[in-house]
Amino acid sequence: PKRALAKIAEVARTAKKLGQDDPRRVTHSLKVGLAITLVSLLYYFQPLFDGFGVAAMWAVLTVVVVFEFSVGATLGKGLNRMLATLLAGALGVGAHHLASLSGEKGEPILLGLFVFLLAATVTFIRFFPRMKARYDYGLMIFILTFCLVSVSGYRDDEVLEMAHKRLSTILIGSFASLFVCVFICPVWAGSDLHSLVAVNLEKIGSFLEEFGNEYFNGLEEGESKKDKSNLEGYKTVLNCKNTEESMANFARWEPGHSQFKFRHPWKQYLKIGTLSRKCAYRVDALNGYLNSEIKAPLKVRRKIEESCIKMSFECGQALKELAMSIKTMTSPTAVDLHMSNAKTSAKNLKSFLKTGLWEDTDLLEVIPAAAVASLLIDVVACTESIADSVNE
Amino acid sequence: PKRALAKIAEVARTAKKLGQDDPRRVTHSLKVGLAITLVSLLYYFQPLFDGFGVAAMWAVLTVVVVFEFSVGATLGKGLNRMLATLLAGALGVGAHHLASLSGEKGEPILLGLFVFLLAATVTFIRFFPRMKARYDYGLMIFILTFCLVSVSGYRDDEVLEMAHKRLSTILIGSFASLFVCVFICPVWAGSDLHSLVAVNLEKIGSFLEEFGNEYFNGLEEGESKKDKSNLEGYKTVLNCKNTEESMANFARWEPGHSQFKFRHPWKQYLKIGTLSRKCAYRVDALNGYLNSEIKAPLKVRRKIEESCIKMSFECGQALKELAMSIKTMTSPTAVDLHMSNAKTSAKNLKSFLKTGLWEDTDLLEVIPAAAVASLLIDVVACTESIADSVNE
Repeated sequence: PKRALAKIAEVARTAKKLGQDDPRRVTHSLKVGLAITLVSLLYYFQPLFDGFGVAAMWAVLTVVVVFEFSVGATLGKGLNRMLATLLAGALGVGAHHLASLSGEKGEPILLGLFVFLLAATVTFIRFFPRMKARYDYGLMIFILTFCLVSVSGYRDDEVLEMAHKRLSTILIGSFASLFVCVFICPVWAGSDLHSLVAVNLEKIGSFLEEFGNEYFNGLEEGESKKDKSNLEGYKTVLNCKNTEESMANFARWEPGHSQFKFRHPWKQYLKIGTLSRKCAYRVDALNGYLNSEIKAPLKVRRKIEESCIKMSFECGQALKELAMSIKTMTSPTAVDLHMSNAKTSAKNLKSFLKTGLWEDTDLLEVIPAAAVASLLIDVVACTESIADSVNE
Repeated sequence: PKRALAKIAEVARTAKKLGQDDPRRVTHSLKVGLAITLVSLLYYFQPLFDGFGVAAMWAVLTVVVVFEFSVGATLGKGLNRMLATLLAGALGVGAHHLASLSGEKGEPILLGLFVFLLAATVTFIRFFPRMKARYDYGLMIFILTFCLVSVSGYRDDEVLEMAHKRLSTILIGSFASLFVCVFICPVWAGSDLHSLVAVNLEKIGSFLEEFGNEYFNGLEEGESKKDKSNLEGYKTVLNCKNTEESMANFARWEPGHSQFKFRHPWKQYLKIGTLSRKCAYRVDALNGYLNSEIKAPLKVRRKIEESCIKMSFECGQALKELAMSIKTMTSPTAVDLHMSNAKTSAKNLKSFLKTGLWEDTDLLEVIPAAAVASLLIDVVACTESIADSVNE
């Protein structure tokens, strides 16, 4: 019993944390409950029920299946479901009609053949990358509805009525989901993508802001490792490609909202995302040098310290500025300044290295410092292309 | 019409390519068609139909929804669906019974309350990362079945029979899917994960094998860029974290098959995957130097050429050897040899750099070469930890 209690306490703690990390999760849960309860009213009220009969359960089913966290996802699924049901329903009625022409014996064979062909073809279409990204759910519902309508038509002669009932209940379910989803504390995939991209830039920016000081001064002061976690924030940037892509897909379904118009250039965000991941890979390599045992000796580091700290800091500032300009959707003001500072430092570093004050140090010791410097120069280039993308 | 024809031709070409890339896609489509046709037999045969009535359509629905590409995914969804239906059906019958005790007026209110509470709670549970990974579908079906059974119980007094019919048709649908999925050209997520991990190592390996020659000799010979695509194979490794994770999740559902036992240590593959991604990040940085305009001058490169080519080549060989040993599930034989060669080269390079034959070159020109060398030393370390993981 003690272990069970501990387990329960742990679950409760996780739940609390999930709720605190993103309070919209709690709202979302309540919204789903509300939408389902609303739709199940169809059942409780006699007049409404008489219209639909048992088919009313399709409405409940639709709400459960279609209701997603963000408006874009719900809208995408709802539209997919409605359109697919409409098309497949019509096709199913047609197939049923065609099959019934071939007489008592031929009908089941012909129906079976239709179902087989359609299911196999549409399943194959689901492998097309473009279809998979946007219409995967619709294609599944297409198979489903076609099979249900054409096959159950074999027993039930009111195929048309059945198709019609299925369609209208699905419409009710989808609209109820959309209504609750859009009008009660909506979660827009577009805004989420927008802030995700900005936050990612900010994370890389704060790493770079700190990196110079950390690398060149960190050790001497014997600092504790407590603020390392702040630096590791960029790690989430490395693996968020899929999240960004699905968010962009959802966002394309969404109508205009707050500062975003319909057909906002969501693809641009993916481009910025790709560039920031490229930058994050370099940052990951820099982080490796931060944690590695073998550091360049103090003497060597001192020589390049100033330029490197400056480069890293200015890039960090520029990225943060860019993040801010994305957030507020204004043109960045000080980015050019930061970038030109960073580039000047890079130039200084280069010309300093050319003067060759290095005869008395052996090259092996210089390598880590040189690699850091070279990576930073790379980061400056990355930052610049990110800045270009943001401006577009 | 010409444009339409061109469009059709393009779609046909894509379809052909999809089929040729992985012929199992075609088989899968046919399998889905077969399974659905099999289940719809329930409708065509009078005696079978009498048993289930209209509920037989749940079986068709189950097949369409549950049938996935790999056995693991199908099994996971099928088990989720069956278990969730069983539990939620029982709970729904209970809720209906409880609500009906409270009389004519109280019943719909109480039912609505139950539905709201359950839907909100379970929706929140779906946010738990662990539940999401394995039981997301089951939780959705849980809400669905509970709502259907408890709510439609309000109109239909044969709740028990309805729950029972729903459960048995879902069982039939799931078993039909599983049967076709397992016994006709099965696609095992486990084997796929196994070969994905091996292929990823191989891709990094072939990059490294070529890299040394490409970097140090490529330019002089004025080689065309045609075999660059061979080198870029590693890029897919950078972003396959999600694929690997979902495959490992599916694989855990699968029973033992061919050389894999049930409870094969799938997590180990994720570990190797993480390490190979870390290695791939370094490789990405190396690739940057390969394509960069500023290369170290020939004189400088010549000096470190031998060791670097050797390091890169031996690491590549070791990775390929490891990939092969994963594929054949045998202990790697020559990896230790390759690794010790690579480490000797790294040592040579280090001591060579220490001798300081560099006085006459300026440091700026050395940096790219030094960075390449340093990254290669990093890669050697990565490769070694991958080798350790594979051996486990």
